[in-house]
Amino acid sequence: MRLRKKPGVQNKLQEMRELVIPNPEVNKGNWHAVFGNTNPLHVELGTGKGTFITTLAGINPEINYLGVEKVPDILYIAAKKAIAQCLPNLRFLHMDVENLPFIFEDGEVDRIYLNFSDPWPKKRHSKRRLTHRHFLEIYKKVLKRPGEIHLKTDNQGFFEFSLNEFSEMGFRLRNITFDLHNSGFSGNVMTEYEERFVNLGQPIYRCEAIVLPE
Amino acid sequence: MRLRKKPGVQNKLQEMRELVIPNPEVNKGNWHAVFGNTNPLHVELGTGKGTFITTLAGINPEINYLGVEKVPDILYIAAKKAIAQCLPNLRFLHMDVENLPFIFEDGEVDRIYLNFSDPWPKKRHSKRRLTHRHFLEIYKKVLKRPGEIHLKTDNQGFFEFSLNEFSEMGFRLRNITFDLHNSGFSGNVMTEYEERFVNLGQPIYRCEAIVLPE
Ligand SMILES: C[S@@+](CC[C@H](N)C(=O)[O-])C[C@H]1O[C@@H](n2cnc3c(N)ncnc32)[C@H](O)[C@@H]1O
Ligand SMILES: C[S@@+](CC[C@H](N)C(=O)[O-])C[C@H]1O[C@@H](n2cnc3c(N)ncnc32)[C@H](O)[C@@H]1O
Repeated sequence: MRLRKKPGVQNKLQEMRELVIPNPEVNKGNWHAVFGNTNPLHVELGTGKGTFITTLAGINPEINYLGVEKVPDILYIAAKKAIAQCLPNLRFLHMDVENLPFIFEDGEVDRIYLNFSDPWPKKRHSKRRLTHRHFLEIYKKVLKRPGEIHLKTDNQGFFEFSLNEFSEMGFRLRNITFDLHNSGFSGNVMTEYEERFVNLGQPIYRCEAIVLPE
Repeated sequence: MRLRKKPGVQNKLQEMRELVIPNPEVNKGNWHAVFGNTNPLHVELGTGKGTFITTLAGINPEINYLGVEKVPDILYIAAKKAIAQCLPNLRFLHMDVENLPFIFEDGEVDRIYLNFSDPWPKKRHSKRRLTHRHFLEIYKKVLKRPGEIHLKTDNQGFFEFSLNEFSEMGFRLRNITFDLHNSGFSGNVMTEYEERFVNLGQPIYRCEAIVLPE
């Protein structure tokens, strides 16, 4: 499940075992116990350096957060940022999104965040996009009913692709905006990539995709 | 049901009663009889000068077309264009979209086209947009199951609004594109407004919204 990584970072992540959960599969179906409460569970996929999820965890103590990131060096930066803040409702998972079904029971997750996922602009790479229907099947499995996916991106092609995949897979779209920062949306929390694109004056696309009870 | 119009044009439209149907409400539930066959019925709302629907009617003789337009002077231009081509599968209705339920039985329409509808960019005018949920309710009533709405626009704000309204009202979105003319979509038929915007180098937004059986 893990990627190859520099042994140095690997060791450092293992020393943070309170925050970066080792063997997350043993908690499948039982994440409430990890957090010691029955609060909703929100998961960010491709969490990067962790600004978004760390900020949210600070704002919303009554929600449990998990940040999933596959690159150990990046995850280490996120973990260092979070550890300084002692947030009891935040953990990280060092893994590939592919493996979500080994980590979560069906319906265990209340919300998924996808922020500035790699757009993989070439058509022959479309299967790698985190909103490819193959991934949406996985999200549907682990999401509660109703469950939500909140997506932000700077990439128009990725956004267009994502809207189509969501619709095709039976998600109900909500709050679609082509320019988040001029949309009147309140309470936005910026990610690292978002800061960068906003500073360049680029519009940010956002939507929510809801999976409804059958 | 009609708008006030110059008497000259009014008379001219009346002389074209084979093509511009007077008292369309008498055909409610019975449009097949008007066309003399049981082919599918496709309706364009806000047909303008009629290039789109006239071209389609020529290409697809096995589909019946109705163009709806409320401005008599514009409709007259469309009708003159069509009359020269003697298309047995094309008629026009001089009326406001508001009145569709007086014209069509529930489920009588197979497909609706909305091309470059007036965007009404001011928020306080949003109820006038032809994709406001109030209009979508009307379309849902008259559309077959499954039934389709095909939308094109140059206006990003109108497109964003429309996607949200469609989703909110339970339509399934399909084939969303943010740049129709670079999307690989084949068989596109241009409208008058589309020609203009394409010549200006502006992208055209397009989507299909499907109403599924319950
Ligand atoms: C473009 S960055 C965005 C980072 C952050 N969300 C932001 O908005 O600033 C995408 C991140 O997703 C991670 N990622 C991509 N594919 C992944 C996968 N299959 N599983 C886990 N993480 C993934 C990458 O390593 C990278 O850190
Ligand atoms: C911007 S033009 C587009 C014309 C044409 N569809 C095109 O793409 O070139 C919009 C047209 O819709 C018509 N229209 C607007 N609201 C309408 C309504 N409620 N009922 C009927 N026609 C309407 C207008 O009169 C106008 O001709």
